[in-house]
Amino acid sequence: MDKTQPRMRWWGWGEDGNHGPVKPGARAILAEVCGWPDGVDNPPGALADVHLPSAELPASVRGRFAAVIGADHVRDDHATLVSHAAGRSYPDLVRLRSGDVPFAPDAVLYPAASDDVDRLLAICHEEHIAVVPFGGGTSVVGGIDAFRPGFEHCVCISLARLDRIVEVDEESLTATVQAGVFGPDLENDLQAKGFTLGHFPQSFEFSTVGGWVATRSAGQQSTGYGRIDENVFGLRCSTPTGVVELRPLPATAAGPNPRQVFVGSEGTLGIITEVTLRIKRMPEHTAPDAWFFPEFASGAKALRLFEQEGLHPDIARLSDVNETAFGLAQLGSELQRKGMLSYLRLRGISTPCLMVLRYDGTSSDSRLRRSRGRAIAKELGGVTIGGVPEVMWEKHRFSTPYLRDTLLTHGVMVDTMETAAPWSTIEALHDSIKHEIERALAGRGTPAYVLCHVSHLYTAGCSLYYTVFARQETGVELDQWRAMKNAAGDAIVGGGGTITHHHGCGADHAPWLPKETGELWPRMLRAAKAEVDPAGIMNPGKLMNGPTEL
Amino acid sequence: MDKTQPRMRWWGWGEDGNHGPVKPGARAILAEVCGWPDGVDNPPGALADVHLPSAELPASVRGRFAAVIGADHVRDDHATLVSHAAGRSYPDLVRLRSGDVPFAPDAVLYPAASDDVDRLLAICHEEHIAVVPFGGGTSVVGGIDAFRPGFEHCVCISLARLDRIVEVDEESLTATVQAGVFGPDLENDLQAKGFTLGHFPQSFEFSTVGGWVATRSAGQQSTGYGRIDENVFGLRCSTPTGVVELRPLPATAAGPNPRQVFVGSEGTLGIITEVTLRIKRMPEHTAPDAWFFPEFASGAKALRLFEQEGLHPDIARLSDVNETAFGLAQLGSELQRKGMLSYLRLRGISTPCLMVLRYDGTSSDSRLRRSRGRAIAKELGGVTIGGVPEVMWEKHRFSTPYLRDTLLTHGVMVDTMETAAPWSTIEALHDSIKHEIERALAGRGTPAYVLCHVSHLYTAGCSLYYTVFARQETGVELDQWRAMKNAAGDAIVGGGGTITHHHGCGADHAPWLPKETGELWPRMLRAAKAEVDPAGIMNPGKLMNGPTEL
Repeated sequence: MDKTQPRMRWWGWGEDGNHGPVKPGARAILAEVCGWPDGVDNPPGALADVHLPSAELPASVRGRFAAVIGADHVRDDHATLVSHAAGRSYPDLVRLRSGDVPFAPDAVLYPAASDDVDRLLAICHEEHIAVVPFGGGTSVVGGIDAFRPGFEHCVCISLARLDRIVEVDEESLTATVQAGVFGPDLENDLQAKGFTLGHFPQSFEFSTVGGWVATRSAGQQSTGYGRIDENVFGLRCSTPTGVVELRPLPATAAGPNPRQVFVGSEGTLGIITEVTLRIKRMPEHTAPDAWFFPEFASGAKALRLFEQEGLHPDIARLSDVNETAFGLAQLGSELQRKGMLSYLRLRGISTPCLMVLRYDGTSSDSRLRRSRGRAIAKELGGVTIGGVPEVMWEKHRFSTPYLRDTLLTHGVMVDTMETAAPWSTIEALHDSIKHEIERALAGRGTPAYVLCHVSHLYTAGCSLYYTVFARQETGVELDQWRAMKNAAGDAIVGGGGTITHHHGCGADHAPWLPKETGELWPRMLRAAKAEVDPAGIMNPGKLMNGPTEL
Repeated sequence: MDKTQPRMRWWGWGEDGNHGPVKPGARAILAEVCGWPDGVDNPPGALADVHLPSAELPASVRGRFAAVIGADHVRDDHATLVSHAAGRSYPDLVRLRSGDVPFAPDAVLYPAASDDVDRLLAICHEEHIAVVPFGGGTSVVGGIDAFRPGFEHCVCISLARLDRIVEVDEESLTATVQAGVFGPDLENDLQAKGFTLGHFPQSFEFSTVGGWVATRSAGQQSTGYGRIDENVFGLRCSTPTGVVELRPLPATAAGPNPRQVFVGSEGTLGIITEVTLRIKRMPEHTAPDAWFFPEFASGAKALRLFEQEGLHPDIARLSDVNETAFGLAQLGSELQRKGMLSYLRLRGISTPCLMVLRYDGTSSDSRLRRSRGRAIAKELGGVTIGGVPEVMWEKHRFSTPYLRDTLLTHGVMVDTMETAAPWSTIEALHDSIKHEIERALAGRGTPAYVLCHVSHLYTAGCSLYYTVFARQETGVELDQWRAMKNAAGDAIVGGGGTITHHHGCGADHAPWLPKETGELWPRMLRAAKAEVDPAGIMNPGKLMNGPTEL
């Protein structure tokens, strides 16, 4: 496999050959609620027709890059530039499909080693060239859009060739890994040795370790295996003015923890080239479970008790009424769906909320936790049909993003957003976010269908994750999206949540960072950044230097 | 109780009436190894004879402070200044006892509310006055020494009157607490409601929540209940140029986590006035256990397996040969000690290493984990005599610091230092630190007796905590101490550890911070600090502005 070739198709999610069909039941819901128009068919345009703003790099600069990594690894052909011009946010997809891409690098550089990255950044610093680091390119928050405020040129540095698993320390249960290693490659290697990182974001197949660490990623098993920020013990970051090497440490009291500043820095401080992560032994046994609750609140209470009473499910996911209805319509057959709903009605549940759970561990331990969980779920009015829904969910868990491409072709906007907050605020926050999204879109004449689930548990709170469908407003797709995004962001931050628990800040969430933390913290971050990146070349327009700073 | 009166005696640890006698067995060890001289008796001098460098504040400044907090709460009587002039490090104690205290504030201010602190810091910023925040005054790393580089005046701001438990959120299992609340006051309040923070540093009785958070404190039950940095969900920090309010969040992906920058900031960024902490329900049951291992390495391996196999003891502590010998000599009677050693010899253990453990939880769960732990300990050559040693250890766990005062009176230097590192480096690191401390002190003709224990477990590594005894070099006590400290610090950081896992950086560990993290990180911290504290008034000479920067 040519490592420099992107793994995803240029105009959408994943690989050709996979796609996400909309089942009749789901289509019926979207037709009824959103007024989904029949017969719309807007496939993506042709690659050759994509218009990019890229400019040619001066030969002298090109020569300097080539001297470090070889001329072959300085690329500016059209296909390479398009495939590195955007992430996979809704605005990114709208722009790519329309062929009108306002941001793109002038070249993509492929270093092969950490010190190549050091040298490339030093050159970019001297030549005053903006830099966008690129892992798997799966950002859904404008995290890799190639802004170039005040810069004549912008390059993308791909970590694709830094793909080595450097060391597995079986005594300390850590793995040291280069930033460009893709999820499946790492997990396959670890599992062959009897270990797992247990990190499975929905982008798992197409995202990299460096991307996870730079964006503070949360995976679908992070309730059990920990968010990526909890699992980083050491890292190496190249900055424009030098290297930061943070030795692997299980804990330290030596002042503010620098790991927690580089983790989540989203390429604004430098490029993370290597990390040391906690790994675990592969669990001996996994015990799946699934429940239907009569309403979201009682399901959420069950999740809270699971975590606070120490059952620690490794996967825990509760869908609200809409997400459950959509999931049943989308995943199984009509017959299965109707049978299930009849059964649940008989058991007194007319608006079911599905919960899927998995307990990993020794055979006895995982079964014991599941049986304690079952007692709690039953007490709170849950009805179980065994573990099958969990197994089904797991089978399809990486396929949902393909659905977006299908819906966009047929004129339906789809976006996701997420937060986390204390348990005592969750019910009011959930209602308010849903209400504000619906209000914003109904006000434009494009009524929304809003799904929500909880997928990450903490003793003090949980995450909330929203999926929004609405009929696209042709010609003003981005205005429509921005109105929805603004309503959601204000409701999230106004209600005590964080602007992002899964996706990172990038450009899209940056305006809410000062609203969440106050103005002083972004100022402190900008000052710290200026110390290592005085010219501001690193991923401009993201995070603390969000688009309002451009 | 007058809240403004310090809880500790001015010249040493804790309260009068408590003291730490040296038992004959321990005395014999120190006489043999260190050549502890009989008959030395150097009690601390009189309070009135302590010489301070304090200068009187200008009346105008005093008036501005008084306008905020009342004239009664601006104090500069001799006793108040002495009791806020130093922490409880070895150099601090040597200086206090000798009456020659080179650093002290000009006044101590006692705000009653968070916004009092805001106003006082704004005044200090305008008047260019250095500020040392004061919680319980227990720092053992020069964290509250009143340096005033480039400042004519320095004040101490005591948090003693910010002593309110603001809210207990029983649904989210969090407590919001003002910074000046002392350990026992918080724990008593929580336990009366059925909860616990589970944070018991050795300074527990005399230290405050704000001090714990500002210094990234680790407690004796942190293996189970988490270090303080893992338990902070939100905080409020006054800085000279404004307030930072970080809402309580269970997790966030919104860039670098500001909580992890203010936690551990040691008063250099501002004064933490309020924090929201994770609490737990009081455990139903605690199951103590204790083992003797034939050597340190097999005991450490048992601890590693406990943690990696998910037994998660809430207390876990392994003493090396020297610490076990000293502990047996110091805690029990001679008869008990000899009986114990004979019994262990019969069981094949001639140089025992004691491990104490406690498992908290439901009755069945804590017993189950203990029984799994027992199987591992037995397999690795451990011998048990039941849980009694754990119960004994717990009974005495806050009394050890009193021993320091006794030893100083009798001409024995005693200091502690600590680190954490990955499991795969622990054995070599332990040997090297011990060896370097012994070498440094033997080279001065004052042979050392070095004790070590492991007290905090992580899947990836553990802590190492050293206690060092040696005969004092009269007249050059601080030179002797510095030689030892330098040897230990270089061995720790050179061997892959962190310069501190328990105690924080303060002034004493600051020189090793750039050695541990590289120069860029302290530069980034200084830049971030300059954004909120442009005049550099906040706790000068500590952490990233260590004494080399003075």
